[in-house]
Order: sequence, then C-alpha cells, then structure tokens
Amino acid sequence: MCRWLAYSGTPIRLDELLYRPRHSLIDQSLHARLGVETTNGDGFGVGWYVADSMAEPALYRGTGPAWSDANLREIARSTTSPLFLAHVRASTGTPVQQTNCHPFRFQNWLWVHNGSIRDFALLKRDLVLAVDPELYPAMTGSTDSEVMFHLAVTYGLRDRPIAAVQRTAGLIESVGRAHGVPDPLQMTVATTDGDRIWCFRYSSEGRSRSLFYSTGISALRTLHPDREMLRGLSEETRLVVSEPLGELAGAWQPVPESSYGVIQKGDDELSRFEPSMP
Amino acid sequence: MCRWLAYSGTPIRLDELLYRPRHSLIDQSLHARLGVETTNGDGFGVGWYVADSMAEPALYRGTGPAWSDANLREIARSTTSPLFLAHVRASTGTPVQQTNCHPFRFQNWLWVHNGSIRDFALLKRDLVLAVDPELYPAMTGSTDSEVMFHLAVTYGLRDRPIAAVQRTAGLIESVGRAHGVPDPLQMTVATTDGDRIWCFRYSSEGRSRSLFYSTGISALRTLHPDREMLRGLSEETRLVVSEPLGELAGAWQPVPESSYGVIQKGDDELSRFEPSMP
Amino acid sequence: MCRWLAYSGTPIRLDELLYRPRHSLIDQSLHARLGVETTNGDGFGVGWYVADSMAEPALYRGTGPAWSDANLREIARSTTSPLFLAHVRASTGTPVQQTNCHPFRFQNWLWVHNGSIRDFALLKRDLVLAVDPELYPAMTGSTDSEVMFHLAVTYGLRDRPIAAVQRTAGLIESVGRAHGVPDPLQMTVATTDGDRIWCFRYSSEGRSRSLFYSTGISALRTLHPDREMLRGLSEETRLVVSEPLGELAGAWQPVPESSYGVIQKGDDELSRFEPSMP
Amino acid sequence: MCRWLAYSGTPIRLDELLYRPRHSLIDQSLHARLGVETTNGDGFGVGWYVADSMAEPALYRGTGPAWSDANLREIARSTTSPLFLAHVRASTGTPVQQTNCHPFRFQNWLWVHNGSIRDFALLKRDLVLAVDPELYPAMTGSTDSEVMFHLAVTYGLRDRPIAAVQRTAGLIESVGRAHGVPDPLQMTVATTDGDRIWCFRYSSEGRSRSLFYSTGISALRTLHPDREMLRGLSEETRLVVSEPLGELAGAWQPVPESSYGVIQKGDDELSRFEPSMP
Repeated sequence: MCRWLAYSGTPIRLDELLYRPRHSLIDQSLHARLGVETTNGDGFGVGWYVADSMAEPALYRGTGPAWSDANLREIARSTTSPLFLAHVRASTGTPVQQTNCHPFRFQNWLWVHNGSIRDFALLKRDLVLAVDPELYPAMTGSTDSEVMFHLAVTYGLRDRPIAAVQRTAGLIESVGRAHGVPDPLQMTVATTDGDRIWCFRYSSEGRSRSLFYSTGISALRTLHPDREMLRGLSEETRLVVSEPLGELAGAWQPVPESSYGVIQKGDDELSRFEPSMP
Repeated sequence: MCRWLAYSGTPIRLDELLYRPRHSLIDQSLHARLGVETTNGDGFGVGWYVADSMAEPALYRGTGPAWSDANLREIARSTTSPLFLAHVRASTGTPVQQTNCHPFRFQNWLWVHNGSIRDFALLKRDLVLAVDPELYPAMTGSTDSEVMFHLAVTYGLRDRPIAAVQRTAGLIESVGRAHGVPDPLQMTVATTDGDRIWCFRYSSEGRSRSLFYSTGISALRTLHPDREMLRGLSEETRLVVSEPLGELAGAWQPVPESSYGVIQKGDDELSRFEPSMP
Repeated sequence: MCRWLAYSGTPIRLDELLYRPRHSLIDQSLHARLGVETTNGDGFGVGWYVADSMAEPALYRGTGPAWSDANLREIARSTTSPLFLAHVRASTGTPVQQTNCHPFRFQNWLWVHNGSIRDFALLKRDLVLAVDPELYPAMTGSTDSEVMFHLAVTYGLRDRPIAAVQRTAGLIESVGRAHGVPDPLQMTVATTDGDRIWCFRYSSEGRSRSLFYSTGISALRTLHPDREMLRGLSEETRLVVSEPLGELAGAWQPVPESSYGVIQKGDDELSRFEPSMP
Repeated sequence: MCRWLAYSGTPIRLDELLYRPRHSLIDQSLHARLGVETTNGDGFGVGWYVADSMAEPALYRGTGPAWSDANLREIARSTTSPLFLAHVRASTGTPVQQTNCHPFRFQNWLWVHNGSIRDFALLKRDLVLAVDPELYPAMTGSTDSEVMFHLAVTYGLRDRPIAAVQRTAGLIESVGRAHGVPDPLQMTVATTDGDRIWCFRYSSEGRSRSLFYSTGISALRTLHPDREMLRGLSEETRLVVSEPLGELAGAWQPVPESSYGVIQKGDDELSRFEPSMP
C-alpha cells in the first residue's frame, strides 16, 4: 500500500503540494486515512521535469520515511516544476532499498504504482520473461511495480500508453490464472512522458484502491475566492492523488472503478479501462 | 513519544520478546496503541548483556524503522541474553541519527527514555552546563534523553541511582521554572548496570506516559498452563514495558503515577518518586 | 573488486580477525594493497554460525563503509563463532544496497565472491534463466555474485559443491562466448554449509585475483612462540583471505591459480579447478 | 581530512564541476592525491544559491560516500547555480551522520572546513561555552567544524567576516594553550553569504592543508582556446579547491600559507591571516 500524487500545470514549488496542504503527501506518509495501512514509511521518491524540457526527468528517492527526510524538504523548497510525480511507499514484502522506490524512470518516462501483484514471488519469473530482453538489464530493483512498468514499455507504452497498460494488466491476469492466483492485480498507476499524464484505477476484483482528481481550477476559485494558492494556477492545472490533500470542499472527484484518465493540453479524457491479452 | 521494553531473568533469545508476541515491540513501532503517536519509526535500538558478565553491554542501533530492519531480525534471533533493553523512537524534533537512538550507554550502564523535556532547545544549554565536564565529550547526540542520562551519571547514578534520577528531575524542573517553561519533564525511564534495573514513571504535570510491569511468573503459569513460553522462565523473570505485549490476561500491572521500581534478585521494590534539588 | 575472509576453527570473537590484526579486513576496506581498487567502501557483511549448530547462520550486512559502522564493531566484539565469512565490497556497477551485500545465504549455506562477470548486463538474462525456477524468487538483489550463487545451488551445491561451482563457471563461460564476451569470469569464492568451507580461485583469463590460506598453526606457534593469539587455537584452525592479515612471516600461502581448496576436519584438500559444461 | 570546492560566477550545472572534470571532487572522494587520507567517504554535502536570490541556500547532505550516491548525481545534473560550496568528508573521529556533514548553514550563510581542532574532545566544552547562547540550539551535530562556524557567527561573521574568523582562530589557540594542546588549529575554510566568498588557509603549526584558486578565465581561454567549458564563463568566475580539478596547465594557484582571499564583484582580495584574541 502506498500513496502517490501527480501534478501538471502552472510551475510550482514542490513543497506547495508535498508539505503545505493540511493533509499533504508527507503527512500521509505518517497518517494515511484511506489506505490499507496508515503508515507509508518504507521509502519515498519524487520525479520532476524542468520547464520547457522534455528530457529525462530528475529523481530523488530515499529509503527512510519521507516525514523525517531533511533532504526532501530542501529539494522540495528549492525546486519548481510544471509536472511531477511523488510517492510514499509501504512495502508489500520486497526490501526497502532505493531501487525499489518509486517513481521508476525509463528514458523520459516516469511510473508510480499503488497496489500489488498478489503472490508476486510465484508469478515473477513468468512476468519477467515477458519483458523485452533489451529492457531486462534496466530493472535493478525487485518490486512488482518495476516489472509492471517494464512490461508496459515492452508493450508499447511510448507509442500507445493506454493499450500498453491494458496489455500489461491482461498478462498479469493471464499469468495469475495459470498459477491459480485469484484476483492477481490491484493498481492505481500514474505514468508520464513529461507532457501528458496517464492515470489508471483498476483491480481484478473490482474493488480498487482509492484515486481522486482535482476539479477545475476556475470553479474552485469561484467557490473559494480567499485561497491564495489557487490564484496563480492556470485552467489546465490538474492533480491526481491517492487520497485528497487539504480540505477544500468540492475540490476532489473520485476516479471511477476500472477507468483511466489522460491529463493533457485541451480537454482531459476519462474512459473505461479493460485488460487485454498481450 | 517512544516505546521501550526492559527484560531481566532467564536468558532468552531477543526475538522471543521483540518479534513473537502478538503486540510485540516491533509491532508497536508501526502500531502503538497507548502512545501519543501510533508510529515509532525514527530509529530504534537494543542493548544486551552477555550472561555471567557485568562488562560493557553490546548495542545495536539503527536509524530506519525497526519494522523493516533485516539486521535487527538477524541479531534478535541469534542473541540470547539474561538482561536487555530495547527502544523504538518517535522523534520529538531532534534529528534521526544513530547517536540519538536509545539505549544510551556509559561504561556498563544503559538508559532508555520515553517522553521529553518541554522546550528543550531553550533549556538545553543550562542543562548541559550541569553535566560533569569529564562526561561532556561522551555526549555525541543531540537529544534531551542523552542529556538526562549524563546528568544522572553526574549526580551519582552509579552509586545511588534513585537519588541521582530524582536530582536530575529536580534540576530539569528548576531550570524549566527559571525559563518560564511549565511542566517541563515527562518521562518513563529504565536504566541498568547489567545486574539490576531501575524504572521510573514521572511527569511534572502528574499525567505520565504509560508503563507496565509483568506480574509474577508462577501466578501466570497457574493461570495459563498451556503457554509454552512461560514454562522455562524463572520466578525472578520480569518485564517492564511502555505498553503490554501480547494478550495474557492478568499479565500486566500499571506502574503507579510518580513512582519507581527496582528489579533485582530477591524482592523487587516499588516506591514513590519525588524530584529533589541537585 | 572486494576483499573477503573465511574462518574455521577454535571459536573466536569476530573482532579478533575483523579489527585487531594490523592489516585487518576492516583496514582493507579503506586501504587494500593487492586489489584493483584500494577502497572497498560499498557495503559489507558478515555471516556466522553458532557453535554446535548446523542451522541457518546469522547475517549482518550494511550499505555504508565497514570502517565507520558502529554496529559492526559492537557485533564483532560480542559474537563468538567457530566458522564465519566476512566481506567488504567495491561495487563493479550494481547498486549499493543491502541485498547486494555478501555473504549471500540460502538455507544453511553462505557465499562470498570477489571478482565479476564481465559485461554482466549483457549476460544476465541468460544466466538467470538457467537458475532453478524454484530458486528464482530467492534472488532479491542485482549482482553477478548472487546469480552465481543461485546457479551453483541449481547445479547441486548442497550435494557436490565442487562440481556445482565448476558447472557454474562453465555456464558463465559458455554464455559469455555466445555473446562474444572474452574472458567473462573472474572469481575468488568461498562457500560453506557451516561444517566445511570450499574456496575457489579462477578466472577465464588465467590471471585471478589474489587468495591466500593460513599455514598450519603448530608450525606458526614454533616460529612465533611469543604471539599470544596463536596459543588458544586448535590445529584445525584455518583462514582463507583475499589478502594477508597482519605481519606474521610464513603465515600465508597463495592459493595457486585455477584451483580450489576444502577446509574440513582431518586433512584439507587443494586441487585443480576446471570449468565444466552444465 | 576532507576536500572542498567553492564556485562563484556564471551559473553552471553543478555536475560540470562535481563530476565532469578528470579529477573532480567526486573522484577526490575516492582518490584524493594531496590529502592526509586518500579516501573521503564519510559523508558529503553541497549547498547552493538560486540565481537572483540572496535567501537561504539549499542543502543536500548524505552520510554515505559521494561516489555511490545516486541522488547527488541527479541533483547535480538538474541544478544550476551561480554560487555553491561542495564538500566530501573524512571523519577525524566524530560520527558519520547528516548533522556532521558540511556545508553547515546559518540563515543565508554556508561554511565548509577541511582540517581539525586537535584534541577536540578536550577543548570542546570551553569552545562551546563561548558560542552565543542564542545560537547554541542551532548546533545539532558534534564536529569541531560546526563549533568553529558558530563561534565565527558569534564573533560577527555576518558583519566583519575576516575579523570574526581571526577571533575564532585566536580563541581556539588560546583554549588550546590553556589545555596544553600544541598547534591546536588546522584549517582551510570557505564561507559565503550568497554574494561573496571568503576563503582561509591557516594552521597553528604553519603547515596548512593545500588550497588553490583558479587564475583568470581570460588568460585560461587564451592558453586553451579549444576548451569548450571555458567559453561561456564570465571574467568574474572563480573556483577555490582543496586540490586542483582537471589538468589545465596554468589553471591553479596555491593560496599562500596563513592567508585569506575574498571572491567578489570587482577585484578579489588576497591578504595575510592572523588569529586575534576574541
């Protein structure tokens, strides 16, 4: 069980979202409300893009709890970005080490995941064998999340991200069935190329972990004319989060069960997610 | 806010108490029930004596959460001791670093503390000045707990431990008053020379953090004839804990407010604790 | 490049070998003399067996440099063992994380390695595919050394250790050839079941990393009647090391190129090592 | 013994100096040439100012070796700054913990130090007592370097930095004499307010650790017209380093024994340093 956050919009300092809101992501590392576990203290990470650059994003990942990491606080207050992902981890069994911390990165892509592949030790070898052998050495950790990411890259994430994640989910369910593992997949995922963000909420059992997106900024501004932070933000600004930050009434909408969303210039999308055979 | 445990009696493997009970100390690092905070993830430590030796005890202290420390698990399952202290830490503001982890050690003595000195930054210099200059370089961390320990050593811990801790408490309250800090001291403390254990429960406000001691083993054996772990333990075996381990009805007695106990060969003691002027 | 040490004989405190000799293993972590690198600061580990027990050995592994690890010093001075392996690591590219630190453990077996598989990223997938699928989930790190260990277990380490390591070396050379990697294997290895220790010195190019074993204790005692540490040690006591500890003239013999040794009750063995096809 | 670097001039990415030069600071963490120790693996840090801002600089400090820190590499390649200090540490006895890593920060000031106060454990209490009680709680580590910094702040660093460091040195020598410690101070120091950098080279014995400054960029450009990195740099750009980076002939001048320099807009200064009584 983990908590994550994806931001796209007007460049802001990372600490505006990581530390300042009343129920910020860092606060969720110690006191999550909606998760299976209240504590997400098994490492953390943030990946950010520099404005006007599509190049490889920067990563800061640590193995201690986010709440006590002095460097994270420094980086968050000195870094401004128009698009970033952040994650606090609660291990489902794999070791607490930097290579198991999210976001995972491949070229200009980032990936964060909340959830798990059930009986991963049993399914891992078959899943890893399906990863493109060229990508194989790029996997340096031991989590289900990292394997999922490299499966998605294998299945064409860079060209058709939604289809690639649907095939990844399909493979996991197929391998799970072959090994007699019921309901093998539980996921909320965000992935980005530095331009758009794709978010997914799905589980084999149809009871997925929570996921929310922010409603339109202009509506919020009308509702809350006194909130200073809302003033500088563009109409395009969006947040997707495992659980709501802060306490703005009307600010958050649940992402429906078995669906995906795309955050992009112009209209966003929200549509049904269905695993497909790879 | 922290949780600690002190054991004296028949030599046992550390993991019998650190990991095996249903609400073990390691479990309390993630899910404390009685504390101000539920999470004690800011480091941990264990200090143990080797049987038939009064010499300097061994220490293992780490800065990550106890619940995910693979080495602690290894040490706990391979170490047997007749007397040990263990501690999981929730920082009250000082950095998460090994020199701030309990137990603290001086010669053959160990010290663990739950609680805090209120407005410690304000009072620290005056308290440190009261430490014996010879002991000054032995303080390598930055916590209130370590300063308390070295004050107690300054005031004669090695010869008259109860009086030394009473003078330590008295000094803290006196320095607190001088700086206008109300109710400056909150503590449960265990300290040991490898032979006896002294435990203290006190706070300036008279509402001290929880502390419990185990009742007599023979009574427990009679109540719970089926509990295997109780069989090998001597009559002298005692545990003192911030919150109860496991679920044995009748196993735990609260240490009364403003009192101290001595665990030793022969009859234990339980008496009233009163700060005194140093 | 790494440095390791294997000890078997009269139970001694670990610090007698890890810290006390003039050119101890911990000193070699900072100032190795015979290695490709002088610094071995990318993690360390020690694995030890408890006397009169063939059960799973205990492990202590850390990701910082051995020379500054306060816990290692504590464990070394409080632990006595008749058989242990210790290792200081210089990464050849894989991450510095606990799951990449030696010794590796499987059931009652331990494994340490100095050297590398050349172009491991290129060969890794083929090598991992040869590991018994049942063992696959037990690999939690990302090093060549851990894969070698699990290949050896796959090839029968527990029953015929020498043949198993020869087949492991043969597979690595065969996979290397298939990928056009010249001289793919460089290794000194020690592995043990808690009773005997098998040591190997081999490289595809025929220029292997240094390895030494201690000569007979009684001869040493005659040569150096004043050395206190030698007095208590049994005739059976043996050390194998990447580079000599201390300065006892006549104490160390080089293990010949392309050979293996067995340390066991009764006569030890020393014989020629030849990779074989798996 | 440590190594440090101070940069002021045209904003550049940190990795241009931390990683790219042939004998970069990160390379010096593993292979220093001019130091007492070749390895500086006991932590590291970098502090940087954001262009056009005199506010509190950002810090990134770690306790592992700089050479294997993946986050440092990320931060160095994604951060651009016109003024920064970086440091790799070799402990002279105090613990390896973040609060002992340089740079130290107070408000908008940074401080790095190479060297030591001899017999610091003996002198520490007297030195700490001379620190302004208001500043006392700001010291959270246990090094001589941090105490020196807070003494300098006590003696007016923010208003008259040279005089403040001279008084700091004078106090250390005076306290050293009182305790019978010969030649108590060894230092090269850089300190900055985000606008100017003050550098000091001094030791009581008159044999100070090495320190170099870069000669004029225009002269270098004339000497090395093919060096791309030199082209974009302004005339005002300066570097001060414990030992030379790279291999540009004529690029480095030793800072004379017992002297200080000021890097600032307009002409720099270089003058004699003499301790004074506080």
